[in-house]
Amino acid sequence: MPTPRTEGPVLVTGGAGAIGSTLVRSLLERKRSVVVVDSLVGGHRSHLPSGDAAHGLTFVEADARDAKAYAARAEGASEIWHLAANPDIRLGTREPRVDLENGTLAASEVLEVARRHDVPRFFFSSSSVVYGLPSVFPTPESYGPLLPESLYGAHKLAVEGLVSAYAHSYGITAYVFRFANIIGPRMTHGVLPDFFEKLRRDPTRLEVLGDGRQAKSYLRTEECVDAMLLVGERAHDRVNLFNLGTTDRLSVREIAERVVVACGGRARIDYAGGDRGWVGDVPQQLLAIDRVRSLGWTPRLTSAEAVDRTIAEMADARKCAP
Amino acid sequence: MPTPRTEGPVLVTGGAGAIGSTLVRSLLERKRSVVVVDSLVGGHRSHLPSGDAAHGLTFVEADARDAKAYAARAEGASEIWHLAANPDIRLGTREPRVDLENGTLAASEVLEVARRHDVPRFFFSSSSVVYGLPSVFPTPESYGPLLPESLYGAHKLAVEGLVSAYAHSYGITAYVFRFANIIGPRMTHGVLPDFFEKLRRDPTRLEVLGDGRQAKSYLRTEECVDAMLLVGERAHDRVNLFNLGTTDRLSVREIAERVVVACGGRARIDYAGGDRGWVGDVPQQLLAIDRVRSLGWTPRLTSAEAVDRTIAEMADARKCAP
Repeated sequence: MPTPRTEGPVLVTGGAGAIGSTLVRSLLERKRSVVVVDSLVGGHRSHLPSGDAAHGLTFVEADARDAKAYAARAEGASEIWHLAANPDIRLGTREPRVDLENGTLAASEVLEVARRHDVPRFFFSSSSVVYGLPSVFPTPESYGPLLPESLYGAHKLAVEGLVSAYAHSYGITAYVFRFANIIGPRMTHGVLPDFFEKLRRDPTRLEVLGDGRQAKSYLRTEECVDAMLLVGERAHDRVNLFNLGTTDRLSVREIAERVVVACGGRARIDYAGGDRGWVGDVPQQLLAIDRVRSLGWTPRLTSAEAVDRTIAEMADARKCAP
Repeated sequence: MPTPRTEGPVLVTGGAGAIGSTLVRSLLERKRSVVVVDSLVGGHRSHLPSGDAAHGLTFVEADARDAKAYAARAEGASEIWHLAANPDIRLGTREPRVDLENGTLAASEVLEVARRHDVPRFFFSSSSVVYGLPSVFPTPESYGPLLPESLYGAHKLAVEGLVSAYAHSYGITAYVFRFANIIGPRMTHGVLPDFFEKLRRDPTRLEVLGDGRQAKSYLRTEECVDAMLLVGERAHDRVNLFNLGTTDRLSVREIAERVVVACGGRARIDYAGGDRGWVGDVPQQLLAIDRVRSLGWTPRLTSAEAVDRTIAEMADARKCAP
């Protein structure tokens, strides 16, 4: 990996989350100074490295919306990675204000910090849900129209647009990543934590939302971070937009069966029925990753392997135990 | 035109603006009850019909963000048309908060009103600027990725996503229109009011931003309104997204020359240079209108005819006079 072109600190919002804390480890390994801004609502202080491994790391407990709490840290920074978000897609349907606050309003504050402090590079973690339910699989970055079905997805799309406008209007180089389902250590939301939590509460029965046929691709956190860092090194357009995912899909049924086996195989699987897990759920997801592949990155694990590895880690950590 | 399926009142935000007041006239002619919500910052009370022509019209002076001021009027309404917006694209680059407030935050409030009062149909005026500078002309609705270059465009895209998410999450039928440049009576912003205003200040010289080669399509307000009403009658998907424009383009140079002739032909035209009129300007715009044509609507005037008609009206209204 070539030396980063600029060597100022890197500010990471949501740096104590599952993806953020993996990114922070990689940045510290590359000898970058890192300022983590995290409200510790979704993230955890314990997710971050400590002791010798934390050399170069500064932690600011603050919500991304509270720019005053961290703006001074952006002075001289060479990059901002805005990863902070509401991690619970379903919550946004019940409480529409949640994604407005944690999506568009938070990003607006962070982008203003980048503008006011002349931070040259801005990275944003978007999501496959901006595509809504597309008619083309695998779905390329050029797919349109973008008709998200959840408030979460709407605000991811909103922030993509804001990042693009800030890039063009104020001379920032921007990176936007549309994630498949990202899984790995320290995850607190998503299908795997949900299934393990349900089995912990009732080891005899696993209720699955929808009919189990929803099928999506899964990428490990550390692979996702590797891909983002590589794109940051090799892509130099004004706005650099990349899907990140794997080339295979796994159904919710296949995941449920794997989790039940990992937890002793005693649970009966019940399907709630319907083609979607919840209002706003996108039942099918498979991203075209030709663009990131053309830069030289390709996933090492399939979705099935990524899910198996994550289930094994969770089972080892006794997450099945009642 | 068939009878509207539902006959409750129609709530129109921005109803005292140039496009809004044209829509209100058409709705009143169709015997609909209309509630106009307008802050009168960009709109004018005088734009609305008065006397007998105002039968069925209620006016509420309120900002779209101030939902309390008009939410009760949405009870029993069959449609909300959300047209209120900051009309000045350039302002948003100098003051990034303007489009956040008047774009995403205002729309969030209006959408919440629609949700809480079970308003079944929601109409939103988006813009061709969501496309940023596309690589395909004429640009179809399916074009992607959407990388707007102005804050104004970013918030139009944000609201498109919100409208889609509300439609899918809460069972609203949504209509999203991506406008070409809309011109006609009562316009206070855009290239024609700008040129007339400059010539009024200095009849000897017309300064044109950019090199004059920026070329866009122009649609008359009344044609735009006819198209939206027709789409509302004939399109019945969950989210109905339509470009609205004409099939030809006119350059800024051609428009400047026409305005100078209409104002007596004495002014010299000076070009400021550069391929864009201002930061965030999209220099080329031509929308594919196959989708709206397939519903049976087609523009009667070309861009050139629409511009000529509007210039003639403005010259008749002595808008050249110093």
